[in-house]
Amino acid sequence: MSQNNSEKFAQQLSELRLGIDELDSQLIELMAKRAELTCQVGEIKAKTGMPVYVPEREAEMLDKRKQQAEQLGVSSSLIEDLLRRIMRESYHLQNNRYRCINPGIKRIVIIGGAGALGSVFVGLFERSGYNVDILEKDDWECAADLFAAASLVLVSVPINLTVDVIHSLKKLPADCILADITSIKHKPLAAMMEAHNGPVVGLHPMFGPDAPGMIKQVVVVCHGRQADKYDWLLEQMQTWGASLIEVSADDHDQAMAFIQVMRHFNTFVYGAHLAGENPDLVQLTNLSSPIYRLELAMVGRLFAQSPTLYADIIFNNPDNFVLLERFHQRFGEALKLLNNGNKAEFVRQFNAIGEWFGDYAKTCLIDSKRLLLKADDDQMLRT
Amino acid sequence: MSQNNSEKFAQQLSELRLGIDELDSQLIELMAKRAELTCQVGEIKAKTGMPVYVPEREAEMLDKRKQQAEQLGVSSSLIEDLLRRIMRESYHLQNNRYRCINPGIKRIVIIGGAGALGSVFVGLFERSGYNVDILEKDDWECAADLFAAASLVLVSVPINLTVDVIHSLKKLPADCILADITSIKHKPLAAMMEAHNGPVVGLHPMFGPDAPGMIKQVVVVCHGRQADKYDWLLEQMQTWGASLIEVSADDHDQAMAFIQVMRHFNTFVYGAHLAGENPDLVQLTNLSSPIYRLELAMVGRLFAQSPTLYADIIFNNPDNFVLLERFHQRFGEALKLLNNGNKAEFVRQFNAIGEWFGDYAKTCLIDSKRLLLKADDDQMLRT
Repeated sequence: MSQNNSEKFAQQLSELRLGIDELDSQLIELMAKRAELTCQVGEIKAKTGMPVYVPEREAEMLDKRKQQAEQLGVSSSLIEDLLRRIMRESYHLQNNRYRCINPGIKRIVIIGGAGALGSVFVGLFERSGYNVDILEKDDWECAADLFAAASLVLVSVPINLTVDVIHSLKKLPADCILADITSIKHKPLAAMMEAHNGPVVGLHPMFGPDAPGMIKQVVVVCHGRQADKYDWLLEQMQTWGASLIEVSADDHDQAMAFIQVMRHFNTFVYGAHLAGENPDLVQLTNLSSPIYRLELAMVGRLFAQSPTLYADIIFNNPDNFVLLERFHQRFGEALKLLNNGNKAEFVRQFNAIGEWFGDYAKTCLIDSKRLLLKADDDQMLRT
Repeated sequence: MSQNNSEKFAQQLSELRLGIDELDSQLIELMAKRAELTCQVGEIKAKTGMPVYVPEREAEMLDKRKQQAEQLGVSSSLIEDLLRRIMRESYHLQNNRYRCINPGIKRIVIIGGAGALGSVFVGLFERSGYNVDILEKDDWECAADLFAAASLVLVSVPINLTVDVIHSLKKLPADCILADITSIKHKPLAAMMEAHNGPVVGLHPMFGPDAPGMIKQVVVVCHGRQADKYDWLLEQMQTWGASLIEVSADDHDQAMAFIQVMRHFNTFVYGAHLAGENPDLVQLTNLSSPIYRLELAMVGRLFAQSPTLYADIIFNNPDNFVLLERFHQRFGEALKLLNNGNKAEFVRQFNAIGEWFGDYAKTCLIDSKRLLLKADDDQMLRT
């Protein structure tokens, strides 16, 4: 390439880049303007008590923009991804105030309200205009006074303390609601029913404390007693954006045996195995494709968290151990397939499991691929 | 609220929404303009042979925009996420033409070039100005003619066929490069060294066929013989945006035993366990938090894929079976901790594993949380 040509190209390139930078600046200004408008929307919603998240409005708005994008020759999946990310931000910005569903409520006591998930509830209640008292183990001497004035007592303490804390509750007012947010439900619910004669409900918020509020999150509801008395509480959580799922405490705990206990225990052993075999971790991540980096991350993330939390979840119910024993057996049986070189039977079982998963396997594949593209945008999970 | 007030609010809300819609329209127009400019950038890059992906330019540009966002009171993480997603699109759009690193190359033969990953390479070579011939098993009769004219023969066939295909290669020209892209490396590389006296290199592209090109992807390089002769090929892949990692075939295969074999086998057993226990899958996903939906998706996704592919990966090397046996043992030992109620030892081991993971555990946790927020934007993985 001649000197002249290469200079010409360099100049063209730098002009184009200036143009792109200018458009990106406009993007930021656009976002600033949009944030202003969504804040105003949030204020009106708070005043009128309208929900922050309206799935139909979101879907309709996305559809319109995707159509417009296609007309302009812009990738509709790009626009969808951008708008979804932008909407996450607006929900966040609109999160300041919520409608108070039951202004008649006197005080709400959150036991463990200074904890990670407890403080999420404290914030949500306060931003909905309720008076909240936080009760931690060090200020138990004021407990009786707080309980006497409470319309709702919410237990938000570590699993292994939940039942004891519930048993230690001094007599609550007859119409006070007793609720908990532990990730197991049978034992706490039974304990609450025993400790209190008034309204009782077990909750399990299916999200961690770092989720941005409760929008689009699932909260499991296990009914205890006098549901009409705590209806407002369920409606309040819906106002915060939650989807409620009502199941029995036993069904909940059975599902959690699969979802939590089984998965965490397997991950624990996987981590133990890696540490025991001691491969070069940096080499491993360097040699990993995005999907394997994600797989590894799902293992690694466990060990950045509280050992006792996971010990409590796993050791909580010895009834679950048989499920783990059967996994161990199945692993042994699958190993026999390998040692016998029985590929045909492996393939047969693989297909049968695929049939059990049904269409969900396909959904998992498609969604996980989309997710990996997003992880790749960020060069995530690389050492 | 009075009728008047509620009408006033409804009107304000609808005006604000019109304003938001208008801004979103502008966003789409902005993206159309940006796409035009990035296409022109792509053309210049193709002409001058500049790489599509320049990490420094990307980082510098992001930094500037994030600063600008903060000055305007816009969340810098919002702007970063948006720009990263937009850049993915531009790389895609710029993907049309690549610089040809070695115009002296006569013909490239890709055995299995009609397959999923093979066709990715066909496309990349063709868009870089090379002549590519695809050889599938049905047109093996023209193989000798194609080989005679080839400067590079790339083997891209299923694992279980790779070594046989390599052994069946008719005499290649002495200066022809022989390469493969199988996900195991020791056996194919040894076979290639035996089948051909000229330049030989083993490659393992660490990405699936649905990745958008090779930008930001890892390709493992296992050197065989006469590296100076295939230098251009490595440089060509870097032009496509790949990061190359050079390791020995044995180190590669050992890492893959952990990354692929161990993980897939565990996932297979996990799926077998779920199907065997037969819980209500819809209930399970409904009761799942984002992280558990992702965990479940990592299992489910396996079974939407080819059973024989995974059978080939897992059964390929019986040396790996002892690794799986030791996992099985460790699982049994961990079960004993449960049955003995030995929480203290569980916690001790948990901490030791955390130490083994070191800072990477934290990275995994942070990155997986970010990723889950992205999954949540889309309400992914819900049945």
